[in-house]
Amino acid sequence: MKAVVVSSGGPDSTTVLYLALKRGFQVFPLTFDYGQLAEREIEHARSIAERLGLRLLAVDLAAMKGVYSGSTSLVDERIPITEEFTSPIIVPFRNGIMLAIAVAYAQSIGATHVFYGAQESDAAHYPDCRPSFVEAFREAARRGTDSEIEIEAPLASMKKSEVIKLGTELGVPFKLTWSCYRQGERHCGVCESCNNRKRAFLEAGIRDPTMYENP
Amino acid sequence: MKAVVVSSGGPDSTTVLYLALKRGFQVFPLTFDYGQLAEREIEHARSIAERLGLRLLAVDLAAMKGVYSGSTSLVDERIPITEEFTSPIIVPFRNGIMLAIAVAYAQSIGATHVFYGAQESDAAHYPDCRPSFVEAFREAARRGTDSEIEIEAPLASMKKSEVIKLGTELGVPFKLTWSCYRQGERHCGVCESCNNRKRAFLEAGIRDPTMYENP
Repeated sequence: MKAVVVSSGGPDSTTVLYLALKRGFQVFPLTFDYGQLAEREIEHARSIAERLGLRLLAVDLAAMKGVYSGSTSLVDERIPITEEFTSPIIVPFRNGIMLAIAVAYAQSIGATHVFYGAQESDAAHYPDCRPSFVEAFREAARRGTDSEIEIEAPLASMKKSEVIKLGTELGVPFKLTWSCYRQGERHCGVCESCNNRKRAFLEAGIRDPTMYENP
Repeated sequence: MKAVVVSSGGPDSTTVLYLALKRGFQVFPLTFDYGQLAEREIEHARSIAERLGLRLLAVDLAAMKGVYSGSTSLVDERIPITEEFTSPIIVPFRNGIMLAIAVAYAQSIGATHVFYGAQESDAAHYPDCRPSFVEAFREAARRGTDSEIEIEAPLASMKKSEVIKLGTELGVPFKLTWSCYRQGERHCGVCESCNNRKRAFLEAGIRDPTMYENP
């Protein structure tokens, strides 16, 4: 059975990738360049896929800048990167777009499953990370493709520290994953995403292999 | 009130555009270059928007070729263009992708409505043109954006000939709209889409202003 895995090069989606492989799927990782400043994410998604002998499909959505311009610091350089969430929606409906493309890709290659890495602590901030959204989207995808496609968010009820524990069991090379919102050589260690990453390893009681600019 | 209108430069979506204007919305037309051979569509969408003094946002999804490659003649030059439907899904979940981006754009500019031009005769061939899909997608969009966004497909229960009648009442310049799957100077007059267009004007009893290569 084939599965499309939305793979951002981060610790969550990489854990999902390893989980899908463990469940025996032939995995097709899919990543997006939607004009985010952290292009480094994509390099990381690619090196993780290559390490596993998988072909990563990278879809260039840089033209989405026109859609999002002005609404989020992730794609607009004029808005400063904050260390905490400032708005309940950082990139409106980003997962909606990514899942829609993943469903199209799945249909195109005959995959029956789409996996993505939304987890519990995202859900408070991003409505399109909530299980109720995933359910509704699954229904829309089934009606819109006339198929029994399955959309799974296997981390949806897990904290990030639990994801770190699960990934460690599955052999995820966390050192190769990227979380930082900035484009540095190393993780900055101070943005909100780096802070979440640090906290997750700490809470999991697992040594954090990340090289931070500011440990 | 603001509305995003998915606008392909075709007769259906142009009729929807005029309908949204008539209902008093401040309209933001949105079109997609998803690597379709008929780039001419986009030129037509642009000239229709300009005529109305509206700013068309064109989102370049040409990179979607990697997603669809091999599955459809609309994006892969190696597959011949047919004169009839050969498969129930020509571009899998295309409307799912377009609506997801339209919802993101709507959120980004503070629009409350998204309009698109699916109509009854599409529904037989494309599952993502059916009212049951639109309903499910609306629910997913609401949950995924935490808003009461409305998605309307006002032509969903109309035949193409009824759309031609409605558009004529609304003053749609059908001559500026484009239906042909090919990239010619004029409508080819023989592809499936040209045939539908011809038939619709004929059934509506309205003079077809289109210049066909093969009338």
